[in-house]
Amino acid sequence: MRDVSIIGIGQTEVGEHWGKSLRHLAGDAVLAAMRDAGVERADALYVGNMLSGELNGQEHLGALIADFVGLRGIEAVKVEAACGSGAAAVRMGYLAVASGLLDVVIVVGVEKMTDQKGPVTTASLAMAADAEYEVVNGVSFVSLNALLMQRYMHEYGVRHEDFAGFPINAHKNAATNPYAMFRKPISLETFKRARMVAAPINLMDSSPVADGAAAVVLAPSDVARKFQPLSVRIIGSANATDALAVHDRRDPLFLSAAALSAQKAYRQAGIGPNDVDFFELHDAFSITAALSLEAAGFAERGRGVYLAKDGEITLGGRIPICTFGGLKARGHPVGATGVYQVVEAVLQLRHQAGPNQVKNARIGMTQNIGGSGATVITHILAAEG
Amino acid sequence: MRDVSIIGIGQTEVGEHWGKSLRHLAGDAVLAAMRDAGVERADALYVGNMLSGELNGQEHLGALIADFVGLRGIEAVKVEAACGSGAAAVRMGYLAVASGLLDVVIVVGVEKMTDQKGPVTTASLAMAADAEYEVVNGVSFVSLNALLMQRYMHEYGVRHEDFAGFPINAHKNAATNPYAMFRKPISLETFKRARMVAAPINLMDSSPVADGAAAVVLAPSDVARKFQPLSVRIIGSANATDALAVHDRRDPLFLSAAALSAQKAYRQAGIGPNDVDFFELHDAFSITAALSLEAAGFAERGRGVYLAKDGEITLGGRIPICTFGGLKARGHPVGATGVYQVVEAVLQLRHQAGPNQVKNARIGMTQNIGGSGATVITHILAAEG
Repeated sequence: MRDVSIIGIGQTEVGEHWGKSLRHLAGDAVLAAMRDAGVERADALYVGNMLSGELNGQEHLGALIADFVGLRGIEAVKVEAACGSGAAAVRMGYLAVASGLLDVVIVVGVEKMTDQKGPVTTASLAMAADAEYEVVNGVSFVSLNALLMQRYMHEYGVRHEDFAGFPINAHKNAATNPYAMFRKPISLETFKRARMVAAPINLMDSSPVADGAAAVVLAPSDVARKFQPLSVRIIGSANATDALAVHDRRDPLFLSAAALSAQKAYRQAGIGPNDVDFFELHDAFSITAALSLEAAGFAERGRGVYLAKDGEITLGGRIPICTFGGLKARGHPVGATGVYQVVEAVLQLRHQAGPNQVKNARIGMTQNIGGSGATVITHILAAEG
Repeated sequence: MRDVSIIGIGQTEVGEHWGKSLRHLAGDAVLAAMRDAGVERADALYVGNMLSGELNGQEHLGALIADFVGLRGIEAVKVEAACGSGAAAVRMGYLAVASGLLDVVIVVGVEKMTDQKGPVTTASLAMAADAEYEVVNGVSFVSLNALLMQRYMHEYGVRHEDFAGFPINAHKNAATNPYAMFRKPISLETFKRARMVAAPINLMDSSPVADGAAAVVLAPSDVARKFQPLSVRIIGSANATDALAVHDRRDPLFLSAAALSAQKAYRQAGIGPNDVDFFELHDAFSITAALSLEAAGFAERGRGVYLAKDGEITLGGRIPICTFGGLKARGHPVGATGVYQVVEAVLQLRHQAGPNQVKNARIGMTQNIGGSGATVITHILAAEG
């Protein structure tokens, strides 16, 4: 294998883009990333997307988007791993460049979710869970996560308001991110008064349905500097899985795929959790953030929630998370999220994060989760400066 | 990069599998391929599938199938490129092993299409075309191809019955393939009397909607023989694209992505069309077979159809195609087809094709097409004996 670096990044604002189709959103992100990288061509385009068939009546996004951005002819496919599709596509791009067979690979994550009515989107998102054993019995994706949160609170004696630090941190960071969906801080009071979605998950525990696209350009590390003086190296990349159905897991409160994925990435990078300066985790729900911190080695079992409560996840804390707002406040266009995380990590490592900058950030980790923890893709990135 | 070989193959019968769910079909193929390879573990599972969301209410197939076959924890994703999804997944597996980062990678193509009513399947298949510029105007996937066939007949002065050789050859070869959906020969008379689907495409010009799964196990060539004495090497692999919408193409009667994909694969393999002993092409419709032969360099423009008419595509002909029945008669479970093609090519190169054997087959080519030619993946395989 050869080392791989990120030489360009691009993103669209996350929100309700009723005036732009899926190809336009993806195109905006790809073209921004190409401009940033200073490239006019590429060998391949890998698209991370979960629900274009169900919500947009369109499969075959690879060829569609490649042509739309002026790259007709190049290799192109879509990669899907539910809400982990974005980072799964990044990993495919990483493997392709690492192989030596492709040089410049663009990865775009895109999802357009707000054209459909709520029940259609809810039913589609449930396709991340087991259709024949979970969904057939009536669970939605949020109700599955509500069971996990309820169990966590019961097992560890945690109160619901102990989770408030997660959305408060996310919204605070999103306030200064021009690409975020919800650019306003929230208070503990907002959290307590939020409407219930599926008890105990309330509106402030939940990331929003959204439209958006983010893209990265990958190239071999040995030529990356020719394109981009601020290139960022991928020093760890891993994809690991677990049972799709929550009831099939050995311990539903331990995200074993997240742990395995993080361990593989740490091993490849030759580092451990203490070397990570910030962690873009997958806060689809507050409970997911807590479980991710535990699985990735930043907290003991049952203690992840206290990192939020004690302020250790803020920009100046021990392990900053969701530095641009996370899924909760930047927004969660599902197949795009994993690429947004990588784009944001690159901004941190380039020291271009403005008011959101984590001081002296040298190593960042991203972790994108598909379903309620069945596919987890971890990347560890390092500044090359 | 390092060289990659195929050390195991598996397939299910193609047909209407109402008694088996998608995971069972995929599982049968994966376990057969693992037994054939003599492996009990793998580093990753890549799933080729187009329509599991639309037709089976299930995304996130990577983790689902990995767990179902006893490989819980390994890297897994779904790869989609419409009807080219199967070979697109094979190519991802190829790149992953070539990178040196993964050793044993299983690729399974699976599609379960017959649980839904016809209109749902037809609408879902149309997602391979451009939703906003083609489908919105009323085209289905077969009507798009009917336009191409009509134009071909007009441009080159070809009669409809000149295409009959394609399905006649396919059905003849399927008759002795225990995995084929339609195991009976057809005559010219059958072809002429077949019901019209979308003029001029009749039922015998059309591959059937079907359920099925096929799998391959990939490993580095330098250790392949340890697993499998009859390993087959991938000497060329390429994915190329074209505009998704037919009206956007420079010349609708030339499959430029097929030509580009074939040229890239030929170049990598260091061979040309004359070196290819058989060609598993994508005969979704008779017209597609003719256009593929032309784009891949086996016939001049407008002459592909005569290879069928003159019998040059039969097992003993100049360039045998669809040696186990092709999409037309083996059946076309869309996301699985590209893997079936590779499995069949391996059987030929191992000289395990029984009555379907192409004599002295040493080099075989497979070409899997997404949409009406927008994504084309070509593989060239060589016997290592």
